[in-house]
Amino acid sequence: MTGKSAEHPQRLQHLLTLADLPQTTLLALLERAGEFLAPPGKPARRYDLLDGKTVANLFFEPSTRTRTSFELAARRLGAEVVTLDMAFSSTVKGETPLDTFHTLQAMNVDLFVVRHREAGVPQTLAQHALPQVHVVSAGEAHVSHPTQGLLDVFTIRRHKKKFDKLAVAIIGDVRHSRVARSAVQALHTLGTRDIRFAGPAELLPEDLDGEQFTNPDKALAGADVVMMLRIQKERMQAGLIPDEHEYFQRYGLDATRLKLARADAIVMHPGPMNRGVEIAAEVADGPQSVIREQVSNGVAVRMAVLATLMGT
Amino acid sequence: MTGKSAEHPQRLQHLLTLADLPQTTLLALLERAGEFLAPPGKPARRYDLLDGKTVANLFFEPSTRTRTSFELAARRLGAEVVTLDMAFSSTVKGETPLDTFHTLQAMNVDLFVVRHREAGVPQTLAQHALPQVHVVSAGEAHVSHPTQGLLDVFTIRRHKKKFDKLAVAIIGDVRHSRVARSAVQALHTLGTRDIRFAGPAELLPEDLDGEQFTNPDKALAGADVVMMLRIQKERMQAGLIPDEHEYFQRYGLDATRLKLARADAIVMHPGPMNRGVEIAAEVADGPQSVIREQVSNGVAVRMAVLATLMGT
Amino acid sequence: MTGKSAEHPQRLQHLLTLADLPQTTLLALLERAGEFLAPPGKPARRYDLLDGKTVANLFFEPSTRTRTSFELAARRLGAEVVTLDMAFSSTVKGETPLDTFHTLQAMNVDLFVVRHREAGVPQTLAQHALPQVHVVSAGEAHVSHPTQGLLDVFTIRRHKKKFDKLAVAIIGDVRHSRVARSAVQALHTLGTRDIRFAGPAELLPEDLDGEQFTNPDKALAGADVVMMLRIQKERMQAGLIPDEHEYFQRYGLDATRLKLARADAIVMHPGPMNRGVEIAAEVADGPQSVIREQVSNGVAVRMAVLATLMGT
Repeated sequence: MTGKSAEHPQRLQHLLTLADLPQTTLLALLERAGEFLAPPGKPARRYDLLDGKTVANLFFEPSTRTRTSFELAARRLGAEVVTLDMAFSSTVKGETPLDTFHTLQAMNVDLFVVRHREAGVPQTLAQHALPQVHVVSAGEAHVSHPTQGLLDVFTIRRHKKKFDKLAVAIIGDVRHSRVARSAVQALHTLGTRDIRFAGPAELLPEDLDGEQFTNPDKALAGADVVMMLRIQKERMQAGLIPDEHEYFQRYGLDATRLKLARADAIVMHPGPMNRGVEIAAEVADGPQSVIREQVSNGVAVRMAVLATLMGT
Repeated sequence: MTGKSAEHPQRLQHLLTLADLPQTTLLALLERAGEFLAPPGKPARRYDLLDGKTVANLFFEPSTRTRTSFELAARRLGAEVVTLDMAFSSTVKGETPLDTFHTLQAMNVDLFVVRHREAGVPQTLAQHALPQVHVVSAGEAHVSHPTQGLLDVFTIRRHKKKFDKLAVAIIGDVRHSRVARSAVQALHTLGTRDIRFAGPAELLPEDLDGEQFTNPDKALAGADVVMMLRIQKERMQAGLIPDEHEYFQRYGLDATRLKLARADAIVMHPGPMNRGVEIAAEVADGPQSVIREQVSNGVAVRMAVLATLMGT
Repeated sequence: MTGKSAEHPQRLQHLLTLADLPQTTLLALLERAGEFLAPPGKPARRYDLLDGKTVANLFFEPSTRTRTSFELAARRLGAEVVTLDMAFSSTVKGETPLDTFHTLQAMNVDLFVVRHREAGVPQTLAQHALPQVHVVSAGEAHVSHPTQGLLDVFTIRRHKKKFDKLAVAIIGDVRHSRVARSAVQALHTLGTRDIRFAGPAELLPEDLDGEQFTNPDKALAGADVVMMLRIQKERMQAGLIPDEHEYFQRYGLDATRLKLARADAIVMHPGPMNRGVEIAAEVADGPQSVIREQVSNGVAVRMAVLATLMGT
């Protein structure tokens, strides 16, 4: 559900997934993000597009990076931002996310940025939104992380010409990755067909189209784009994957392994990185890395999403 | 102590309780709140009445809802807001609330919103306030929650004509409820005499005028207003009240029980709600519920309090 | 390293220590702070010097007071502020402070306020700052707390004429005190030579020039300035110092002991205070105390630092 309102079939009301986002809408968001992009090391420009609007960051799962990215995006557009770190909130125990949502909606919050570890929560909230209120998913279980998917294809587009010619390798715990799911959906929409997944067998996805490899070298061969995923250390404790050292040996991206990809391949990571586990420091900081660009692009993409949903 | 300053006997300096707030002052606050009220689903209007002023949210007890309500109220009036979540602050262990207050006052904070689980803290801080500095209680032990009391009578006034004809039933842990105390004070000021309390015998109040019932049905009979209180689950663990299921059976407000009240009775709850414990979902979301209105009204009432105290 | 940039040898890029800050630069900061100082009990003036700039409060160690002081300083200059309380952030476990810094820098943060319990972190971040990005230390291990040192000498200067004639007694856990280190550096720069340290033998510094006493009375004799340091209760648990009562008897500043200093001596404390441990309430709140002034001055000094670093 992308939440098209009945009156304006072309207008997004919510952004909950990239699964059914039309290509034209996706491209319009990328174009708009390009206008908001600020050069590194310079002050970001401030806009008044959302003056007088209130954005609530409603995080039921802890986050520092995504929360800050949304917070800066909203403030640079002129909105007021309130952040509710529900993961640490003891007072609302027993209150449902929907009650919290209704409470904030009653306080005239205009747009909700929602992260929750259970599937379906952003959709439920969106179904209860008043006609002029918007919901953006900032991460939903293993299912979806649409602004991350947008920033990923935005980043690729700044380096690669044609999406339909791209070979993209996604390596790590793909099965549990909302980042991978949203990226794959956006890539499909833009015409990319050659998508390869690599990782431990138990962590390869069952629901995603693409070639699957337990040997990352095969996925990397000739790739234009290498997306490394953050490994959750809890999965090591659960015995699902080997220890850090062994994981790095088998699946980690070091300079040697990266040579299997195309010479002009770009290296991506959604962050935060476990250096020396899924990625070597030399690669993370190396010339092919676009990891910091992804972060900059994330703010611009989120500004585009917020401004577009709010119809400005 | 409502904190009238010596120079302006009519002017409020602090809002710590509703116990001795004159009727004219209370009505003026309600009138003003009406001007600030924003329609649901629309962006809230922004004012510049408090431009350049600094409001500190000084919460020694965790809160999400009240803190956010005050934060939005202050920002929509143009103030800067700093929030100090002292419940989670380990660095100031050993520092008294008064030292924290003096520190912030030295940083030119103009108004303090204070919540503390001990009685007397807001008063102590107010006694040490510089002449142009204001203190608003956002909840003091079991004693007082004046802005909640104001929003409750503001909400009632939007639905009911004459306060002196009203029958109000307050049901739950009235004994430990600052919400009930402040509501009762405001109702008394506005002329309401028929106030009934219901709940487990150990949780009925010893210090409040009104009829007391252990059977909620008797309190509900013919009531115009039904205020359900949040039950603290800690009291169940302490054995003071039965378990959730039994509590709901005996005291919870479901559709059947609500029929004992007048057909046009309104149902209130300060939130956050324990659905299925003190209130059934069908009632909380039903046509007689004004629970979400209370939340909207809370922001408007707090804007009125902040603007009035600051003399704008 | 004070972080002079190559192009502008006179211009500060970062403020990491006071150790090598030239006297002219230090005096210019104090002058500027004087312009920003707001009278107690009045609204602080708001400036637009940093409009459109983003300041990140990056606290790897919990803080309420210093964080709030920097937050208000930045906002009163017109900057946007994002606060990252990394001490409570579980999501970025395993991410290095440098990765967090790069992430925020990629989000076009213009100035970082950094506190970390390990030595060297602010320097490391400053070394990786883009040319127009600034780093201010808000506390580095036991090493440095430069804005505290500035506010201390700013406070002294408002009460005492000549720094070269001053006798300054610093009492408490000097060995582990970044406050003491930065104050001593600033005092040296301004010409103060008579600096005395007093405290338990194990807590006297090995790396600071000055007379050392285990009897605080000897340090206090004829002092113009008395700086009491906060005692960390953890050191009592570790057996390094006696219990609270005995500590107060031996090293605490009460009215009797204060009489050993000059009659016009001022009493300072960086806060938060342990009343009845390192300082008696009667002294903390007495006529010679400038402790609240220090707090007010702290905001003004931080405004001066932020505005100066940002070249406005």
